[in-house]
Amino acid sequence: MTNKKKCKQTINLNNTPSIVTSYSIVGKKEKNGPLGNYFDYSINDSYLGQKSWEKAESALIERTINGVLSKAGLEPDDISYLFAGDLINQCTSSSYGIRNFNIPYFGLYGACSTMAESLSLASMFVDAGYCNYALACTSSHFCSAEKQFRLPLEYGGQRPPTSQWTVTGAGAIVLGNQGKGPYITDVTIGKIVDYGIKDANNMGAAMAPAAVDTIYNHFVDTDRGPDYYDLIITGDLGKIGKEIFLEMIKEKGFDIEDKFTDCGIEIFNSDDQDVHAGGSGCGCSAVVLSGYILNRMNEGIYNRVLFIATGALMSPLIIQQGETIPSIAHAVSINNKME
Amino acid sequence: MTNKKKCKQTINLNNTPSIVTSYSIVGKKEKNGPLGNYFDYSINDSYLGQKSWEKAESALIERTINGVLSKAGLEPDDISYLFAGDLINQCTSSSYGIRNFNIPYFGLYGACSTMAESLSLASMFVDAGYCNYALACTSSHFCSAEKQFRLPLEYGGQRPPTSQWTVTGAGAIVLGNQGKGPYITDVTIGKIVDYGIKDANNMGAAMAPAAVDTIYNHFVDTDRGPDYYDLIITGDLGKIGKEIFLEMIKEKGFDIEDKFTDCGIEIFNSDDQDVHAGGSGCGCSAVVLSGYILNRMNEGIYNRVLFIATGALMSPLIIQQGETIPSIAHAVSINNKME
Repeated sequence: MTNKKKCKQTINLNNTPSIVTSYSIVGKKEKNGPLGNYFDYSINDSYLGQKSWEKAESALIERTINGVLSKAGLEPDDISYLFAGDLINQCTSSSYGIRNFNIPYFGLYGACSTMAESLSLASMFVDAGYCNYALACTSSHFCSAEKQFRLPLEYGGQRPPTSQWTVTGAGAIVLGNQGKGPYITDVTIGKIVDYGIKDANNMGAAMAPAAVDTIYNHFVDTDRGPDYYDLIITGDLGKIGKEIFLEMIKEKGFDIEDKFTDCGIEIFNSDDQDVHAGGSGCGCSAVVLSGYILNRMNEGIYNRVLFIATGALMSPLIIQQGETIPSIAHAVSINNKME
Repeated sequence: MTNKKKCKQTINLNNTPSIVTSYSIVGKKEKNGPLGNYFDYSINDSYLGQKSWEKAESALIERTINGVLSKAGLEPDDISYLFAGDLINQCTSSSYGIRNFNIPYFGLYGACSTMAESLSLASMFVDAGYCNYALACTSSHFCSAEKQFRLPLEYGGQRPPTSQWTVTGAGAIVLGNQGKGPYITDVTIGKIVDYGIKDANNMGAAMAPAAVDTIYNHFVDTDRGPDYYDLIITGDLGKIGKEIFLEMIKEKGFDIEDKFTDCGIEIFNSDDQDVHAGGSGCGCSAVVLSGYILNRMNEGIYNRVLFIATGALMSPLIIQQGETIPSIAHAVSINNKME
């Protein structure tokens, strides 16, 4: 993990694509959490009027994209490329959620790293001059994820203390080649890292080494340290992953504790929301970024943020076959100024 | 579908990224098909020495990437970015297959359009100057796909005449910013198209309208017609999809029949290989492109090829819930000359 690649993992986006606007929708539990007021909209009906949770998650994506377009004052026709993905088998939440928009589409699978993966690609397309506007989007839904990855909800299975609670929510960000920022200045694309964790109820531990690898390479590639950033925030390591992450990155020479938090820790109140190790799911980092972080940047509370979304790339089946959990993390450097 | 977007769907790659080399591995049935001699390697053991078909498909990807790197005379460390995806839930064939290479990774989900999606992104990264080398890869395996999408193999279910046979195979292509070609000159990224087909045993019919939409927009965007190309080849429409496709594109003013074929039709001998409507799966278009087409281009038989991989973006679950099949197609223009 310490070996540097011959090629840098980090790409500097010289044309500094601008975040035009962002939009987030969350469920009731997320609305009742400490960041509740930062989200654009919340739903009370977990079915969103649909007949299944999978269709509900597609409806969530569709509403979120409509929301971000409306907030940006853009039509679907203004967006050249849409980058999206989700956790559900064959990424149907995304494909069914976006099929009515008539926008050229890149389907992604990055598990809970999808917000950083989609944001990186959308930024790069704008930076390279391939389009004026691109859209990055992802979602998760507690019920569709729990049903698919763990147990039927009706079973009411007990969750171990290391487990995380899948966020019901979707976030979308429009990137443009003109705008007042915040700007995407650099992206560091992660490698797959597998430290041999087999417990699918302890994703934080599985994903922490991937986050360490990416942030370490980001610092080395950019010749920056934690001091450069006002905030360094991972996707959904949760409480257990956070401790492992901070210890590992310290061993590699970077003490980032006073700049650091995790979307999975921030989104819920651990004292009374019964989420064990914290939030998770593609939607977790998506709504914390689209709702909370970008609003705080617009207020000037944060000026330089390093956003690192982490994903565990396993399936229930492959875990049943005795496999370990390979993980990945992508980092996006967001700055209120072009620099 | 006939409405043109305000923004073009086609991106002209001015720096004409070059295909450095390609590599393909197929199963026994594919080796025995009419294109058998064009593939780099074939396997006899469908398990590839693994204990499950899912692990076998990961091993297939790993061997294919080792193959393409070795053929190109490159090390994993020379590749800046790897773009891959597959059909299996949470794309585990790709993530477990590439986890040992230590290459920054973009996970994709495009179903059977993945070879064109990964090739487009890899080409664009080289074209934009983000890297010197990028790798595009995808796979499918008859047994892992049949088990997941249809019925247990042991059940021996009858297949309707409209059904297609998932190809066991993986293809990989290295793109570079220097090389003697063939070059990727343009990519046309598809929109999701859903004509209301519900029969998951008739994918060709579901995907044909997406292929029509993409090829039509490719012709309009580039101001080209079928005459420009020596060969126009779709991913895996199969026999039924091919007929629908040719009829629909003719209605839109383009008669391409004498330039046209389909990877799903070419890969098997329909008279004696019992594949019904033809081949399918991410691996189908991947091995036909990596094995057959690029070899024929190197021989000068074809100089200008339009490769259009098509994907059906449904899951077994969402079909059980009564949904239709949204589809997508991405087109890649490949040329022996920079023009």
